[in-house]
Amino acid sequence: MRIKLTLTYDGTNYCGWQVQPNGTSIEGVLESAIESVTGEKNIKVTGSGRTDAGVHALGQVAHFDTDSSIPPEKFYKAINTKLPADIKVIKSELIDDNFNARKSAKKKTYCYSFYLSETDLPLKDRYSTRLDYTPKVDNLLTLCKGFVGEHDFKCFNASGGGAKTTIRTIYSIEIEQKENELKFFVTGNGFLYNMVRTLVGTLLRFEREQADKTIIKTMLETGDRTLCGKTLPAKGLCLVKVEY
Amino acid sequence: MRIKLTLTYDGTNYCGWQVQPNGTSIEGVLESAIESVTGEKNIKVTGSGRTDAGVHALGQVAHFDTDSSIPPEKFYKAINTKLPADIKVIKSELIDDNFNARKSAKKKTYCYSFYLSETDLPLKDRYSTRLDYTPKVDNLLTLCKGFVGEHDFKCFNASGGGAKTTIRTIYSIEIEQKENELKFFVTGNGFLYNMVRTLVGTLLRFEREQADKTIIKTMLETGDRTLCGKTLPAKGLCLVKVEY
Repeated sequence: MRIKLTLTYDGTNYCGWQVQPNGTSIEGVLESAIESVTGEKNIKVTGSGRTDAGVHALGQVAHFDTDSSIPPEKFYKAINTKLPADIKVIKSELIDDNFNARKSAKKKTYCYSFYLSETDLPLKDRYSTRLDYTPKVDNLLTLCKGFVGEHDFKCFNASGGGAKTTIRTIYSIEIEQKENELKFFVTGNGFLYNMVRTLVGTLLRFEREQADKTIIKTMLETGDRTLCGKTLPAKGLCLVKVEY
Repeated sequence: MRIKLTLTYDGTNYCGWQVQPNGTSIEGVLESAIESVTGEKNIKVTGSGRTDAGVHALGQVAHFDTDSSIPPEKFYKAINTKLPADIKVIKSELIDDNFNARKSAKKKTYCYSFYLSETDLPLKDRYSTRLDYTPKVDNLLTLCKGFVGEHDFKCFNASGGGAKTTIRTIYSIEIEQKENELKFFVTGNGFLYNMVRTLVGTLLRFEREQADKTIIKTMLETGDRTLCGKTLPAKGLCLVKVEY
């Protein structure tokens, strides 16, 4: 039977989702936990996609196949007993054999979080990135519109990505500001390697430089990487949810 | 000259504020940083009070004396260059020689944070404690009233505290609930060792047991420790501010 898992993790101490020659991966730790629970060998977990080293997740989705007699909806509790404190499964369910956590994914939402402060704040710094000024949210929202829609995002195509096509659809970019926090929620049908971190960095750059929205059109048409802003630190990024 | 510091820290990796024979203390790390900045030896920092091992701070206050020529309001930036990422000073100012961070403190506010979830959530678990049910906030607020005011809190007097008197004044206990978070803000003129963690644990116990508010009167009058709830984990506690 095929089991669908929804999981959350603090990515700080991991080399990312995918198994790597060096470093501990979320995928690897999860597979070991499931093997330990089921007694099966060579469990293969398929995630909705990779999250990079240091990136967090509130609602990553994955699937695996098993012959275990553990009831599907109780599987997550058994797996959690074998997982470290920074990775937990919040839901497990029986799913059709045609379901594929990666290929069936329709929409993904990432959140990039900032805290606004002149000084580093340790209690914010683990899950968000410091910004030492307050950008104008209205201007940011105007700029966001330039990226929404189906576009060739080759300007964000980092080396090491290896994607077959750089065409993606961004459904929405929402901004939430409260007290000293600023969050960007980006929803799309998929993202290139590092794309969300660079996209948000580029929005900040353009806001700072008071650029006109037309610069985004130029950037998307020419694929000019020199127009990109900074690729922001991994710690501020979180995979919020995957929709099917 | 005397300098007043306001600082914030993630207490996870420390044995608490106070220098201990074993373990690294916030106070010790701060003193070393100031010595390194000023070139002075035997810098003695006085905090508003101890925070226990694992307890966090948003606005701890401390003072120290120095002959350094660094402008007082710029001192914090110099100190921060010598501090680890989990301790940061957010403000430094010149203060009267009569000011004493401990003795002059009038009010302290602590926050105890819970997250409501059936499963451990790694992204919440560093700074709050999991609660697997949703208590009735109205009932909690009624119970809170029993503790507000000047009372002999000997029922909360943990061994190892060594306080001269167990009489304290609690000015207010406020509760904030939003989404899956529940926070208790407790303001008083001072607290016994472990008092906030046991007080909030006791409120939860009484709410769970549907106890009448009169039990608090009995508890305060008799000093009966067996009526106390659990002393909650340190990680959920944060010293929010100290007022002078």
